[in-house]
Amino acid sequence: MKFLKYMLIFIPISLIAKFMNASPSLMFVLAALSIIPLAGLMGEGTEEISFYSGPKIGGFLNGTFGNATELIISFFALKEGLFEVVKSSVAGSVIGNVLLVLGASMLAGGLKHKTQYFNKKVVEVSSSMLLFAVVGLCIPALFTHTVDPKLLNTRYEGLSIFVAIIMITIYILSLVFSFFTHKEIYATASEEENTATAKWSLKKAILVLVVATILIAIESEFLVSGIEPLTKTLGLSEFFVGIILIPIIGNAAEHSTGIVMAMKNKMDVAIEIAIGSSLQIILFVTPVLIFLSLFFTPMSIEFNQFELIALIVAVLIVNRVSSDGESNWLEGVQLLAVYSIIAACFFIL
Amino acid sequence: MKFLKYMLIFIPISLIAKFMNASPSLMFVLAALSIIPLAGLMGEGTEEISFYSGPKIGGFLNGTFGNATELIISFFALKEGLFEVVKSSVAGSVIGNVLLVLGASMLAGGLKHKTQYFNKKVVEVSSSMLLFAVVGLCIPALFTHTVDPKLLNTRYEGLSIFVAIIMITIYILSLVFSFFTHKEIYATASEEENTATAKWSLKKAILVLVVATILIAIESEFLVSGIEPLTKTLGLSEFFVGIILIPIIGNAAEHSTGIVMAMKNKMDVAIEIAIGSSLQIILFVTPVLIFLSLFFTPMSIEFNQFELIALIVAVLIVNRVSSDGESNWLEGVQLLAVYSIIAACFFIL
Amino acid sequence: MKFLKYMLIFIPISLIAKFMNASPSLMFVLAALSIIPLAGLMGEGTEEISFYSGPKIGGFLNGTFGNATELIISFFALKEGLFEVVKSSVAGSVIGNVLLVLGASMLAGGLKHKTQYFNKKVVEVSSSMLLFAVVGLCIPALFTHTVDPKLLNTRYEGLSIFVAIIMITIYILSLVFSFFTHKEIYATASEEENTATAKWSLKKAILVLVVATILIAIESEFLVSGIEPLTKTLGLSEFFVGIILIPIIGNAAEHSTGIVMAMKNKMDVAIEIAIGSSLQIILFVTPVLIFLSLFFTPMSIEFNQFELIALIVAVLIVNRVSSDGESNWLEGVQLLAVYSIIAACFFIL
Repeated sequence: MKFLKYMLIFIPISLIAKFMNASPSLMFVLAALSIIPLAGLMGEGTEEISFYSGPKIGGFLNGTFGNATELIISFFALKEGLFEVVKSSVAGSVIGNVLLVLGASMLAGGLKHKTQYFNKKVVEVSSSMLLFAVVGLCIPALFTHTVDPKLLNTRYEGLSIFVAIIMITIYILSLVFSFFTHKEIYATASEEENTATAKWSLKKAILVLVVATILIAIESEFLVSGIEPLTKTLGLSEFFVGIILIPIIGNAAEHSTGIVMAMKNKMDVAIEIAIGSSLQIILFVTPVLIFLSLFFTPMSIEFNQFELIALIVAVLIVNRVSSDGESNWLEGVQLLAVYSIIAACFFIL
Repeated sequence: MKFLKYMLIFIPISLIAKFMNASPSLMFVLAALSIIPLAGLMGEGTEEISFYSGPKIGGFLNGTFGNATELIISFFALKEGLFEVVKSSVAGSVIGNVLLVLGASMLAGGLKHKTQYFNKKVVEVSSSMLLFAVVGLCIPALFTHTVDPKLLNTRYEGLSIFVAIIMITIYILSLVFSFFTHKEIYATASEEENTATAKWSLKKAILVLVVATILIAIESEFLVSGIEPLTKTLGLSEFFVGIILIPIIGNAAEHSTGIVMAMKNKMDVAIEIAIGSSLQIILFVTPVLIFLSLFFTPMSIEFNQFELIALIVAVLIVNRVSSDGESNWLEGVQLLAVYSIIAACFFIL
Repeated sequence: MKFLKYMLIFIPISLIAKFMNASPSLMFVLAALSIIPLAGLMGEGTEEISFYSGPKIGGFLNGTFGNATELIISFFALKEGLFEVVKSSVAGSVIGNVLLVLGASMLAGGLKHKTQYFNKKVVEVSSSMLLFAVVGLCIPALFTHTVDPKLLNTRYEGLSIFVAIIMITIYILSLVFSFFTHKEIYATASEEENTATAKWSLKKAILVLVVATILIAIESEFLVSGIEPLTKTLGLSEFFVGIILIPIIGNAAEHSTGIVMAMKNKMDVAIEIAIGSSLQIILFVTPVLIFLSLFFTPMSIEFNQFELIALIVAVLIVNRVSSDGESNWLEGVQLLAVYSIIAACFFIL
């Protein structure tokens, strides 16, 4: 991912553009181009730290900070009250990971290796966990969409917080599961990586993380301020920005890793990136956003109906795809086809 | 399940309370506490009889009378015209069995035995049958919810009866399948139990059954009369009572058996209790209730939208869980999490 | 399928009836009875040609012309502007193949052979492809049903064409997959058939195809003209005709082949007929109809809500059924039960 490094040039460009009072739409584009390499650096930094912290804390850091970029962008959107953007970017991250990243990985890997095999057992644990997480996340919305709002009582407001507490509890328990009670399931998968050694000193890794976080925060503010002007200029809806553009920006680094892994015939890793990242979004990022929103205006956990459909479709497909332990280029094409149809639907909004 | 026996004390207490004109809400609680051990006795009685009748008729009896308690409670609710309670308790029994009982079994068993294994083949037969049954049950409601009521013609009224006939036919055919044409699939599973012998005489078993049935009928009437006053006192909806409370009361004995079996590492039995009981509710109890309702006011088979969602979610999850032949405590926690979110939704109604 | 040949007598009968100005409803029945054997001849003719063209082009012909009858009937319905009939017959073909044909095959085969086994791998490829295809097909409709129509912009009209292009691209790529890049998956399945030889000369095969196509076109026109009068006479909705009757007429020949194959214990072939035919309907017939409609009035790809439900139910069930590599008569009965409940719902419309 050498080319990602060159994209860091967009950070000074965006700062200069800001001082020259560039239009918000231009700032959106420049901020997006800056965030992509910063998210990559952030991932690299977390990985380097994990060499020093040992596998358990490292795994926890990787898991928890892997989606820091999305969390920061969403935080600024939340502060601006752009709830629809926040929620659609949660849905979009899951869909993007499961359809776009996994599809591109299977296509790229499948063209090179014909049929690729992955550890069914590990993938089944994650994909069935994703089914639970998505189902749990969608139930409150499905409920309130199908019930006459007049029937809901005052306890209603606590529902989102209740679900957020459940989600983050499951998240913590899943870490206990994978690092303590059932760590042997994941043993063979990570063995190979253990032979790698740190490239950076611990000091450098921490420094990179801190600087990247600050820069992402600055660029996220540019990005979020540009959303409304951009949607007006291009005639796009906030949903399109939230469900398609922001997840691509926030996950680009991760996405390219997934595809590279698939081309190296490490399909297990590619799938774990896609599903694992989706799980963290639902079980960690979403509840944290719900809790943070309590400091501004409380955000409900309810998705709109089409976000629900897209989420459920994505999770059903990933469960189907993972159930045979094999993948090929045609499966990749089909995942991409479903993604493009979903994107087209949001494009006409 | 010794402690269940002690709960029989609530039967005389509830009768005394009735004579002292206790409030309907208190009667609801006392009746609930009486029905739990009675349902347990009923199950024990049926099991004892099956030692005398041979495995085929015994299996049939177990299957058919296993949900007698729910049938009796629903019958009184039906007589009172509490259709919503009846239907939501059907949905609640399935959800309770598949999420609450299975979840608790997997959690309790998984904490003790780490990873538990079960016969994939047997469970797949039941779980795919449950998929069909739920789908068949939900189609009429999905249909009428999505169609303009003005478009429906007079043949509409026959739809519930048609579906009920189909359901009970499938039920009878499934007995033919498991006791005649494909009995060898179930052979190994029940072998072990065959070594057990009757603890009761046939006469005692029949007497227990008869007395338990009469007492359940009396207590059910107390229970049903208490529903409306209770919902008003506690600010709960009829749906919450139907979907959460009644299934727990009616199935408590079965539930504790499931958990005990899981802790004994007999996960097959625990799963069969959960899925088998759900199947009987849909294929036997529901059509019988539809037929019985013809003597009062005909009850339609249509569930409301959220009951549908809960049913479909439950069946998708049980199909996913059963597909790998393994379970662990984290799966149990996830099932319980989904159940608690569903319960929370009905709680805010 | 000897008896199909005798049904050819209905062709002259229908022509005579036409000249005698028979009622449109009678013409519908006679045309239906004529199309059934013609569709059979068409299938036979395509198969004969494939002996001369070699397996690759033969497979392509079989795949592409296998649903010629449905295509022709739909073309005339399209010309008449009967969009609802066209779309419901697309949904009906998929449901009919997956529930009725597969159900009847599993029942007939299971009664004779107890438990039947099929190649899980081949069936999983097709059934997961069907999941993708149905999901892709349903997304635009799910989207527009859940979104306020006022929010849709002018790009909306292009959505159906976009989806049609995606579908036909996947269709072409799936032919590349099965005849070029991954042909070995299908190798063993078709080996047996390769030993068969042509019964007809190439000339005869082509002649049969041409004549059958012309006759089907004529009869389809009779059939389509009879739809409206028939629905009025019998008090049926256009949906019932589209989703139940037309698919049965168009697929009768294929259906009987599926059942015969199941009774010969060639369950693989029976399943491939059902799923493969559904795939061709979605990936080939539907986009072609969308493109053809551009010459008359553009037809949108949106199904109504209940067609969506029926499609999704059918595809979930076929994925479940195919996941264990086994079938028995009870599974067949369950598929037929779901089909009959769906049919009953359309009957009350």
